[in-house]
Amino acid sequence: MKIYDISMEIHHNMPVYKGRDPKRPNFSIDSDFSTGTAYETRLDLNLHTGTHLDRPLHMIPGGEVLDTLKLEQVITRCKVYDFTDVDHKIRAHDLSKKDITEGDFILLKTKNSILDILEKEFIYLDKTGAEYLKDKKIKGVGIDALGIEHSQPDHESHILLLSNDIVILEGLRLKDIEEGDYFLFAAPIKIKGVEAAPVRAVLVSGI
Amino acid sequence: MKIYDISMEIHHNMPVYKGRDPKRPNFSIDSDFSTGTAYETRLDLNLHTGTHLDRPLHMIPGGEVLDTLKLEQVITRCKVYDFTDVDHKIRAHDLSKKDITEGDFILLKTKNSILDILEKEFIYLDKTGAEYLKDKKIKGVGIDALGIEHSQPDHESHILLLSNDIVILEGLRLKDIEEGDYFLFAAPIKIKGVEAAPVRAVLVSGI
Repeated sequence: MKIYDISMEIHHNMPVYKGRDPKRPNFSIDSDFSTGTAYETRLDLNLHTGTHLDRPLHMIPGGEVLDTLKLEQVITRCKVYDFTDVDHKIRAHDLSKKDITEGDFILLKTKNSILDILEKEFIYLDKTGAEYLKDKKIKGVGIDALGIEHSQPDHESHILLLSNDIVILEGLRLKDIEEGDYFLFAAPIKIKGVEAAPVRAVLVSGI
Repeated sequence: MKIYDISMEIHHNMPVYKGRDPKRPNFSIDSDFSTGTAYETRLDLNLHTGTHLDRPLHMIPGGEVLDTLKLEQVITRCKVYDFTDVDHKIRAHDLSKKDITEGDFILLKTKNSILDILEKEFIYLDKTGAEYLKDKKIKGVGIDALGIEHSQPDHESHILLLSNDIVILEGLRLKDIEEGDYFLFAAPIKIKGVEAAPVRAVLVSGI
């Protein structure tokens, strides 16, 4: 068994969506050894920070929240696809070159992982790509960007995926992961009633 | 493959350590559909909330933080032991009745799971039990309480375990889990430099 960590590290100066300062996580100390006998940190974070999972409510008024996610949707076999030769965005045309089939959970490895593009002009999945994945009836899709899409004014990629119960994982780190088959563990922190949650995402091979 | 969720749900009115109000998580809304085109929640939480993992810095000045935890320490085979017949605390004497061996990751199922004792007089692992597990050279121990110990003034159980690189998982929910062998996934959220982190802990059988 080999374990691969595909998660971003959370800290105040980490990359955040489009580099927006209000999105930064903030840390404070609840107790330390000068005031007590234990050290305890408090963390204030937007739930879309770092590696995280989106639920339909993120983009769809009245949409489903985390409570209805089944663990089988995020603890599952998965396929990593290498799209590091693609510029700007991943389209249906690009996806059609891969053997994507119904029920797959796929992870998209792009130039974002290779070049550490996280805040600004990151590679994303465009609406034609999202439509393609919806038609394929996949289980989920992850990407090495803090957003599955970028500057599509109606959030078409999010909405196409989320309205078809396709899991979205954002903020993956895939630099060291080769294209191939893995087992994915991407269960989010169990927070009641919310539209997203942080995930410690790992891949496992050999099980 | 069967997946068992053994995590607590995080919300404002959840059980917190000894029922202390300042330990409650707080939620706010960063954006919703009245102010924007996406719904985003912000969460302010003590890192020892709900199901979480402790690192040595929690109790030992200068102790190790999350960064040096190896994923192999928390993604591993494990044994669930039923101690639901034990009152007050789990001692070396109780542990000696089980087949605990070097390298084990063990989860202690107590009356806390059966009776939903989470905030006040919860069952815990006493210092004789921690000493026993240290001598057995186990890999990690989890418990269905928000603290591995209760009212031991020098935090002997924490310190015995953490100073011997034994992982501590707190806040597990084991009501529906039978004694036996499982695969444990308990990788914490990847937060830099901290003494603890929330975990979505799951057990898997049949892999």
